[in-house]
Order: sequence, then C-alpha cells, then structure tokens
Amino acid sequence: MQAVVKSAPEDGAKGTEIRDCPVPEPGPDDVLIRVAAAAICGTDKHIYHWDPSIRDSVTPPRIYGHEFCGFVEEIGERVHREGLAVGDYVSAEMHIVCGECAQCRSGNGHICVKTKIYGLHEDGAFAEFVKVPASNVIRLGDYVPLRVGAFLDALGNAVHTTQVMDLAGKAVAITGFGPIGAMAAAIAEHSGASIVIVTDVSDHALETARRWASNRSFKNLHAFNVRTANPAEVKQQIQDITDGVGVDVVCEMSGSSAAINFALDIVRMGGFLSLLGLPAGHAVTIDDYTRNVIFKGVTMQGIIGRRMYSTWQRMLALLRSGLDVEWVVQATFDSLQDFHEGMGRFDRHEALKVVLFPEGEKAAQARLHA
Amino acid sequence: MQAVVKSAPEDGAKGTEIRDCPVPEPGPDDVLIRVAAAAICGTDKHIYHWDPSIRDSVTPPRIYGHEFCGFVEEIGERVHREGLAVGDYVSAEMHIVCGECAQCRSGNGHICVKTKIYGLHEDGAFAEFVKVPASNVIRLGDYVPLRVGAFLDALGNAVHTTQVMDLAGKAVAITGFGPIGAMAAAIAEHSGASIVIVTDVSDHALETARRWASNRSFKNLHAFNVRTANPAEVKQQIQDITDGVGVDVVCEMSGSSAAINFALDIVRMGGFLSLLGLPAGHAVTIDDYTRNVIFKGVTMQGIIGRRMYSTWQRMLALLRSGLDVEWVVQATFDSLQDFHEGMGRFDRHEALKVVLFPEGEKAAQARLHA
Amino acid sequence: MQAVVKSAPEDGAKGTEIRDCPVPEPGPDDVLIRVAAAAICGTDKHIYHWDPSIRDSVTPPRIYGHEFCGFVEEIGERVHREGLAVGDYVSAEMHIVCGECAQCRSGNGHICVKTKIYGLHEDGAFAEFVKVPASNVIRLGDYVPLRVGAFLDALGNAVHTTQVMDLAGKAVAITGFGPIGAMAAAIAEHSGASIVIVTDVSDHALETARRWASNRSFKNLHAFNVRTANPAEVKQQIQDITDGVGVDVVCEMSGSSAAINFALDIVRMGGFLSLLGLPAGHAVTIDDYTRNVIFKGVTMQGIIGRRMYSTWQRMLALLRSGLDVEWVVQATFDSLQDFHEGMGRFDRHEALKVVLFPEGEKAAQARLHA
Amino acid sequence: MQAVVKSAPEDGAKGTEIRDCPVPEPGPDDVLIRVAAAAICGTDKHIYHWDPSIRDSVTPPRIYGHEFCGFVEEIGERVHREGLAVGDYVSAEMHIVCGECAQCRSGNGHICVKTKIYGLHEDGAFAEFVKVPASNVIRLGDYVPLRVGAFLDALGNAVHTTQVMDLAGKAVAITGFGPIGAMAAAIAEHSGASIVIVTDVSDHALETARRWASNRSFKNLHAFNVRTANPAEVKQQIQDITDGVGVDVVCEMSGSSAAINFALDIVRMGGFLSLLGLPAGHAVTIDDYTRNVIFKGVTMQGIIGRRMYSTWQRMLALLRSGLDVEWVVQATFDSLQDFHEGMGRFDRHEALKVVLFPEGEKAAQARLHA
Repeated sequence: MQAVVKSAPEDGAKGTEIRDCPVPEPGPDDVLIRVAAAAICGTDKHIYHWDPSIRDSVTPPRIYGHEFCGFVEEIGERVHREGLAVGDYVSAEMHIVCGECAQCRSGNGHICVKTKIYGLHEDGAFAEFVKVPASNVIRLGDYVPLRVGAFLDALGNAVHTTQVMDLAGKAVAITGFGPIGAMAAAIAEHSGASIVIVTDVSDHALETARRWASNRSFKNLHAFNVRTANPAEVKQQIQDITDGVGVDVVCEMSGSSAAINFALDIVRMGGFLSLLGLPAGHAVTIDDYTRNVIFKGVTMQGIIGRRMYSTWQRMLALLRSGLDVEWVVQATFDSLQDFHEGMGRFDRHEALKVVLFPEGEKAAQARLHA
Repeated sequence: MQAVVKSAPEDGAKGTEIRDCPVPEPGPDDVLIRVAAAAICGTDKHIYHWDPSIRDSVTPPRIYGHEFCGFVEEIGERVHREGLAVGDYVSAEMHIVCGECAQCRSGNGHICVKTKIYGLHEDGAFAEFVKVPASNVIRLGDYVPLRVGAFLDALGNAVHTTQVMDLAGKAVAITGFGPIGAMAAAIAEHSGASIVIVTDVSDHALETARRWASNRSFKNLHAFNVRTANPAEVKQQIQDITDGVGVDVVCEMSGSSAAINFALDIVRMGGFLSLLGLPAGHAVTIDDYTRNVIFKGVTMQGIIGRRMYSTWQRMLALLRSGLDVEWVVQATFDSLQDFHEGMGRFDRHEALKVVLFPEGEKAAQARLHA
Repeated sequence: MQAVVKSAPEDGAKGTEIRDCPVPEPGPDDVLIRVAAAAICGTDKHIYHWDPSIRDSVTPPRIYGHEFCGFVEEIGERVHREGLAVGDYVSAEMHIVCGECAQCRSGNGHICVKTKIYGLHEDGAFAEFVKVPASNVIRLGDYVPLRVGAFLDALGNAVHTTQVMDLAGKAVAITGFGPIGAMAAAIAEHSGASIVIVTDVSDHALETARRWASNRSFKNLHAFNVRTANPAEVKQQIQDITDGVGVDVVCEMSGSSAAINFALDIVRMGGFLSLLGLPAGHAVTIDDYTRNVIFKGVTMQGIIGRRMYSTWQRMLALLRSGLDVEWVVQATFDSLQDFHEGMGRFDRHEALKVVLFPEGEKAAQARLHA
Repeated sequence: MQAVVKSAPEDGAKGTEIRDCPVPEPGPDDVLIRVAAAAICGTDKHIYHWDPSIRDSVTPPRIYGHEFCGFVEEIGERVHREGLAVGDYVSAEMHIVCGECAQCRSGNGHICVKTKIYGLHEDGAFAEFVKVPASNVIRLGDYVPLRVGAFLDALGNAVHTTQVMDLAGKAVAITGFGPIGAMAAAIAEHSGASIVIVTDVSDHALETARRWASNRSFKNLHAFNVRTANPAEVKQQIQDITDGVGVDVVCEMSGSSAAINFALDIVRMGGFLSLLGLPAGHAVTIDDYTRNVIFKGVTMQGIIGRRMYSTWQRMLALLRSGLDVEWVVQATFDSLQDFHEGMGRFDRHEALKVVLFPEGEKAAQARLHA
C-alpha cells in the first residue's frame, strides 16, 4: 500500500517519503481500516520539520497520521464490539492507553501516563490502511461528512476544550483562530454562547472568522488582531462588549505567553480558562499572578486529548444536531502523493485544515453511500 | 390607576374586577414602575378560579400579576443601584426573600423559606403601576422585546429548569408543552441539544411544537401525544431515536404522575430529571422506584422560582444571543379591561401566553424607543 | 472444593446446601482466587428465602457470594495487570459489565444495562475458590483487615452513597441502620460531618449506633426510633438540632416509603437525598411532592453498585486513612458449614455483618502475613 | 477607647501607635461590637512594615485589624437581623462588598470588584470597639473558643482553600505551613484526608506540624523541608507515598514560585491546585507549562477571601463537629499595648497566631459566660 512515511530525521521533503509499505496485519484485538480521508495536524507539521520538541517521540521510519476516517476492512478474531462489521464507516481515537493505571480505571484514560499515540509512537493513518485496537474504533453515522470524519481527533480537542463549561448564554473568548480555535468558535456559537470573541495575530485568520460569522448570520462575533491593535484598547473594547464584567470563559488555543496573559486580563472575576495551546518553549510567565489569578479567583484547566469516550459521544451528538465545521477544510487532495503540497498549504496558513483522500474523494464517497 | 383585582373569594368574573385603585406609594427602598406589559400565568388562573390550592396564599382584595415589564417612574430615597434612573426599561423578580436565612446568605435566595410573592401575597403588576423593592429590579436592554419582557418570570422558570445541565449535544425531553415547556424547548434548541422530544396530551400543543421547529428549520424535534398513542410504542420510538440509550435530560413541566413515570421510563441510565410541574394533588406515586430510580442511578431535582440572580443574568444573555421566544405570545390586548377575555383564551389553551398592555402596545413601544 | 450452593428453588435449608463442587477453571482473562473470608449480604438473604423479587435473577444450582477477599491462586494466560502476582491479597468487584455500551465507554460502568453479578447470575465466592475476570480484581494493602476485606462490596455501596457530596461540616441523616447504614455513619463521622442523625425502627440497631459513637467519643450522633417515637416530635427535634435549617444530606438506606417521606420532611431546602435502599414492592408514593420535592428544590439521586473503579479507589484511601468499620462484623465462623447458622444470625438482626472463613480465620491470617 | 493605629507611613514602631481614639458611631445599618479578642495577620505585618505592596491600600491614620470576635454593644436603628441582640457573641466578615455587581448578585460577593476591607481601607478591630455593617456580622456559638473566634477571617481562608474539593480519602499537600497552612492541615485531617503532606522551608514550622500530628495520633502526615532536602528526592518520596500516582489536591499557601512549580510537579494527572499564597512580586513563572499544566490536565483555582457566607456556614459547622485549631495560637496578650511585642513574635515566626485581648482574656471569658 501507499503511505506517507517519516523516513529520516531530516526537515521537509528530505525526511518524508510517499512510498510503498506492507499493509499492516491486525492482531487478534485489532481492526484494520481502509482509510477514506486523513487530515494534516499541527503535530504532523512538527514531525515534517523535525522540530526538536518532537524528536523524542518519533523514531523513523514511521507512517504519519492520527486524524482520519475510513471503512472497516478486517476484524481481529478476539474482537467483541456489538454490531461492528466489515464495511462500517468509522474513525478511531489514536491515543492508546494502558487501561490499568489509577486514571484509566477511574474513567480518566485521557490522562493515562502511559499513553501511546498512533502516527507518532506507532504507525498512523496517512496510508491506504491502518490498524487500531478495536476498543478505540468509533462508528460514525452519515451525519458526519467524510471531510469532517477526517479530523475528528482535532474536533475532539475543540469539544474537550469547550466541554468544561455550559456555554449557553456565556461570553466566550478564543485566543488563537487556528483550526482548533475555529472549531471551538463553531461549537460556542452552536451551543448558544451570547458573545464570541476571537483574537489572533493574523488578519487572514480574523477575516476567516468574520466570514464564518457572516455566513451563519451570527451577529455577536468580535474579532481582534492583538498584534496590530493597541492591547489596552482591545481590552477596553472587550470590557465594553461584556458590560464591564469581562469574559466568562476563555479557550486558550495558542500557547503563547502573551495570549495566556491577555486571557487572564480579559476573563471576569471568577471566570474560567480552558488551556489547550502548547507554548513553543517550556516556560510560561504569568505577569500578574496576584491580581489575575488569586484576586480574580479564576479557574484554569489544562486540556489534553479527548475524554474516552465521553468527548466522542458528545462530538457525534453535536454533529448530529447540526454543528457545522466542514468549512474549516480549506484544501483537499485526491492522492497521498500530494502530501508535500498539502503540508505546504497548511504550513503557510493558507488552509485551516487540509484533507487527503488516498483513493480520491469520489471513490470514498462511493464507498460511503454503497 | 386601573388594576385587575381579585376582589372576592369567588370563581371567575364574580371574584375579579378591573377597577380604580390608588397608585402604590414606594417606600424608601422601593422603585415605582409604570407597567408596559404584563402576562397571564398559570398561577393567575388558579387565583381567577379560586382553586383550593391557592386560597391559603391570597387574601382578597389583591392586585394580580407577577410577570411584567415597564419603565421606572420613581426611585425611593434610600435606593442605591448604580445607574438606575427614572425612565429605565426594567422587569423585576417578584419573589421577595428575607435576605437573612441560611439559604439567602449562601446565594440560594430562591429557596428562602420566607419568600413572599408579589401578585399573590402582596399587590402585583396587572395595573398601571407597581412598586417593588429596588434590589429586585432588573434592567433590560433593547434586545428584549416588550412582549418577551412581559413574561420574564416564566421564562426564568424555563431557564432555571434547563440550567441544571449543559444541553449542548444532549437528547432532551420536555413533558408538557404549555408555555414554560415551549420556552424550554426553545432554550434546548438554542443551546445545541441534539434531540428535542416533546410530549403532551393535546394535539393542538404538539402542532404548535411542530410548527415552531419547522419555522426554525430544526430537524430533530419529535413530538408525541402520550394520551392517544400507545405508551409502549412511544417509549420504543424514543429508544430508537436515542440509539437505544434513552434521553439524557427530562424537563418535567406537567406535574402529572403519568408524565413523571413516563419521564423515568425514557430517561437513560444515569440521566437527569429537572422537575418543575406541580401535581394537581399533593402525592405522586413512582410506579417502579427500584428499577427507574435506584437501578437507573438517575438524579431528580426540584425546581422552584429563579436563582437570584444568576438565572436572570443567564436569561438576558440568552436573549441577547438570539434566543427567540416571542412566538409563545399568541394573544395580546391593549387594555387591562380585556383581562377576562385574555384569561378565557389562556384557559382554553388557545394561547400559550397572553399579554396585556395597560396603555396599549403602541404607547408602550413609543416609551421604549423614546 | 466446598461451596455454599443454592441448590433448589426452595426457602431456607431445603434450597441451600454446603457441598463439594469442582474448583472453577479460570479462562485466559480470569484470575482464580482462594477465598479467605466472605460476608453474608442482604441479597444472599433474598436468595436463601427464595423471595419472589430474586427468582428471575438466580437459576439453581448457583454458588452464593459476592462479598469476599482472598489470595490469587492462578492467573489466566492473557491477563495483563502490572504487578499482579500469585499470592497477592485481593478482593473483586463482582458486577461484570459489558465494556461496550454508552455508559461503560464514558466511565459509568456501574450503570451498564448488561451488568452480570457473580454470586447471582454466575457462581460466587462462598466457596474455597472463585474465578473472576482479571479487570475486576482489586489489590489490597495490609491496612485492610481480613474481616473488612470480606465485605468491601457492601462498604463500596456505603462509599458510593456518601460520595455524592462533600460531608465535611454537613448535617447528615441516615435512614436505616443496617450494615450499610452503619458503614455510612462511620464514613460520615470520619469525613468530618458536623452532625450524624440515625433513624431506624429497631432499638437494638439504635443501641448499636449509640455504642459506636460512644466508643469513638463522637458527640454529635442523634439516634431516633421512628416507629415508637412521635414522628412530628422527632422532626421537631431534628429541626432544633440543625438550628431550624434541616439536614443537608440524607442517605436513605431502608427503601421504606415511610423513611423516604421522612427523609424529604427533614432535609433542608435545596438539600440532597442519596437513595440506596430498595423497597419491598415496586412503587413508592411521595406524599407531598409539591412541598417536599418542588418547593424545597431538593436533589435526589439513585445509587447502584460502586463506581468502577473510583469508588474502590476512594474506599481503599478511606481505609488507609483510618476509617474503622471492622466493628460492623458481629459474628464470624471458621467454616462454610456454618452458613445456615450465620444466615440465621443475620436474619434475626443479631449481627450487622456475618463473616465466614472457609479455612478458618487463623489460617487466613497466616496466609496474609506469610 | 484604645486602638492600634497605623499613624504614619513609616516602618515599625515609628509608624504604629497604641493610642486613644473616639469610639466609632454606628450608622443606621451598622452594629457596634466590643472587641473581645483580635489576631495579627500577615496583612497587618505588611502594614506594620509599610511594605510597598500595601501602601496603595492604606492611608494613615488607620486602625488595624480584620480578625476578631466580640460582643454586640449597639445595633443601628434600621438593622433587621432576626434574633440579633445586644450582648451576642459575634465575629464579622470584614470584606464589605457592593451588593450590586454581577458577582454580588449571583452569590459570588467574595469576588466583588469593589470590595472594601475594614482594617485596611476603613478602621478595623484592633481597638476596644469596632463598627461593621449588620449584614456582615456572624453570630457564634459557644463551640467557638475566644482564641479561635479571634481569627475566623484567617480560618475562613483555610476553609475556602480546602472547600474546592471533597478531601475525604484524598492525598492532600500543603505548601507552606504558616498559620493558614496549619489550619488547612487541620481541616484536611478532620475531613478524612488519607495523606497530608506538608512542605516548608523552616524546620521550626515542620516540627510544629509533626507535633500537631503526633498530638492527634494522626499517622499519615509527611513533612518535608524543601530548602534543605534534595527536591528530586522529596518528589520521589511523595511519589512513593502516593503509590506512584501523585497528590490529589495541593493547597498552595506560600505564593513562592518554587512552591507553585513544586506543587505542579507533585500533583497527579488531573489533580487540583487551590492557590491562596501571594507572591512577593507580581510575576510567577511556570517552568514546565506544557508537561505540568496541559499534559497533566490539572485544574488550578485562585482563592480570595471567604465565600459570603457559605464559607462561614461551613467553618462554623466544622468547629461544631470538633475541628481543633486552637493550637495555632501560640502567643496571647492581655492588652493592646502589647501589639509591638506580639508583632515581633509573629514576625520572627515564633508564633503561628498571636491574639490580643483588649480587656484581658479573663474579662473576655467572663463576658462570654455571663
């Protein structure tokens, strides 16, 4: 089969090949899935560029990809998942957890300390086929378009980030309008947020946000460029928008120190910060800990992965109820050979999400509706 | 001034007069409000018919009305509410609480055991003017239409009932599609509920529900007549709709024993019942307590009034974010003289909500936009 | 091996034999455990007397027992539980769940609708050996005395019932001072409850409660016989004890309609009822639903089994921190042959808990300290 | 009357006088209280030394003191608090909030942005008499010893810090064993914490912790000097103590960057940090934000003041249930003249809490038991 392989510890095309690989052989507890669509993620970008932060986690050669959907091709002999059948339309949670630790055994597998990630520690889904443990397979309904099925892992991050708080009637800020920030905005609007504030450092991103709101006839979006605008003025505007109270919930998607401090500045007394973004380095300095953390009485929560599997359940229910996130796919390709081109588009922020169809989108659609 | 007065302990027109009364004199801590619009509530119906259940609470003569909006006419000398000014567009919480008990002092005034209700224990808002304690006054923005401002007390019940749980992506059932059930349905849809199931015993009510969903292009409404349909079949359909899992949250709006037991039948394992409806008598028998309460591990919560004032804050935020409930007003009158007629319409279920404008709707609109 | 077997669909000794059975053969995912101690539970009593309520769940012949501790004898070939070794001191969760349903997959296995219970639907632990799925095995530390290890399943019910609410500084009532009620009282006191109120219909039970409190030098126990005392007076006393506020949390352990209504009478506005007790019949009538459920704004939660496995984690942590529940064991026997005698003691309420040691207590102690 | 006055913007005795002042005149909504006992707090120390951090908040001359208890001397004419009478034994919340902002009106007055603190922004309680708004007065029972009544404000901080989480069966760490850390340890032990870990940089403080645990026969205290010991070794020991899982809840009482990072290192995946301590400067650097905040999925909550008034309700209930914190008072004085001496003891960490009795302790006891 064809697969996109991190072939050598090098940056760019020198370290990544689209080449022939053997089809993986599913073990007795595994399911083999024919990949219909796979999406490029920020982690893939780090692998592609062989960023120092990722080197400890990946040992070439390794097949890329942890966001995908596809069709069940083969089911391992010991697998028992009621109703799971060859041909089913599925995705999978690609964090594989130990099942034995204190976290796993109390329903918190998403923070298992022994997590392995397919597409990173093991071979992933940028290929014609991928194998995953049966327990991690998620059956999808036809309310999940293939282009959305392709990035459920990322959508799950957005759902998990917003899942901390009932957003109906809340003023929600999203710092960083990359792909997951964009999904979080869509979830907030869908969930009845009264105000959605988006901040980013790219006018292109903010334009995308405004176009989305306009297409939805959503009037309560406020988008700010926190690089080019005067921060004090932006803060004042946000105070005004929120009647002097401040923002109820911030979804911090950027990992930037500036954004984290900005978030602490604009959140209301007793507000909530849901922290997903990863900083470039290790350290983050909170500039005014006394005033913004203690005296404000805020709550900050780190978000990692997706809850297994309540985030998946909620994500599918949101999609079923009409959550529209297909618009974040801004580039698609009909062959894995286009991976370099797709990565380039993603890298240059020309597309929030890039989806590749190993067999082509038409063929995948035909299988879905077969 | 004109006012609608429960004048004698009699049923119907014999016990209710529209007559001249002195304008109330606000005390030093009160605000006098010129009533723009007032809505008829189920409690008013009990007073009108002098139902046994209400007799202990009302001593004629008593001015009706605890759902209204209006404009500040006069502010008591000791009142200190920043920014509150004569002419402001306002509503008010008509539950007056003691402020001293353990509940009041821990932020749970809505369950103060010494609550007094204006329009019941004291004179209410079906009049040209009403006085209320300044602390209970709520300023409104122009995103609250007068017709909606007229029934915020009832909308607050609906918000409080749904406030128990994040509804985004949830399967929500509403047993009883009266006015508050209708508002709860609107809130659920607005908050991203994946499925809204409505049950009632009136085809007219269910028709209204279906028309609402159709107008909203909301596809996931399922409405059932639990009187005429076979209950077992309805339950089976609900199981199918929810993929065999059951309903996540039931908002019980009817108080009927049958509905409460039906709710317990359709709720999922570990589900939630938010109980607002009052039974005709005192007792309710749970038919299968072992299976439906204990073995299901459900949670049931009684709902009373509105949280002071977080429910109000959330309600206004929901209206600001576009929650549409104006459609529940199905009859309006331009004079308090039409109270008997309005009550008739309400009584015969011809209108979910009936709103009276003491000065006429046009005059009230003129004041609002002055 | 010897085992206590429900041998025929008959009441008492006619339907229960202590007899030789084959040692169970563990499957590849199972663990075989040598039973050190097993405790008699209320469910066993229903099986013993062949009560109508239990007949659908048990098909003789069936080995009794779902409360026990012991030592790992053999580990199935596919079992992977880090650090689990032959000889380990263990207990087990005897609810076996499907692992696939919406509840199981969201960390709520305790409300899996396909639960099978060993000692009921499959052979249990009143035997020299028992096999259980490896995932359900719980390793114990030496801070768990054998006599306590013998009834962790029941203690888990008590922990789960009290786990709904932080009890520190709370007024807690326990309606029904049987074995699980007694454990709940111990947990409440250990967790800093400010007041513990116990109600029962047996003076013997109340005497036990008072003796326990006295031994602990716990001064805030109040024990009431709700059969012999005037209920109105008891309610008044409870109002006085709680400064007129009422009880914060009720753990309802009896399933009696009278107790459930009493609980609703004494709980404070906005209070919490944790409902574990099963009624004799199916129905429970709430006498004053309007006043006690709706107007009080109470929350009621049904409790079933133990959370897998957060209840177990908490239970072990409580035992480790010094929770003392060994005193509820009021009768022990050194042979399974004494099962009839033990059941008699339990049946006549002469002992809150009865523990049998298949090899004798001394031999079991020797193994523990080997 | 005598009072301890910050008389000039100077450090130490030069800026603080014990001198005659007029008895405050209570307004119509105030209560005048005869001070029985008052305690020295860390904030008083900052005022005493005229630390830069405090200068903006205090304008000399100003009477010190926001921790005290006493007896009602006079009640303002408009005051309505049922049962409040001259002679009552009381304390008071010294944070005076606006009552009108979004926080105040939703039961979150403790994070009112307009809070005024008596003893800082207005005259306080290191005097023979103090006046406070009636709403802030708290009646005490005789289960509150005078020495404890003297520092309920500080105890309230400890209760609020620990109130975030049910501590029963939890592994709790307390970073910083000053007075509030000591109280938090007592609360944790009283509430059934399975393990209490204390860290500090002073052997004297750790000795006090160990003596306390020994006096209580509490076996699960682990106290570490994080200055003199090897941090990596301490972390390893804490891992071992918690079976490799880590600490469930950290109460961060020091405000030190090192302690905050240490807390993040030892907390378990998904754990909770309750943050009360104030840093010396403004900024705090989180050294490993990616690993310790995001990947750990921790929750961090800033704690300010005491919830009005649920923290007070809980605090009194804990004292009533036997919580013992009197031992933190390690120095008492029978005259306000001893303020300089008391401050010295507090300053040199010779006493966790220092209590002054304006009339002498015996006289105060006599009034209490009158």
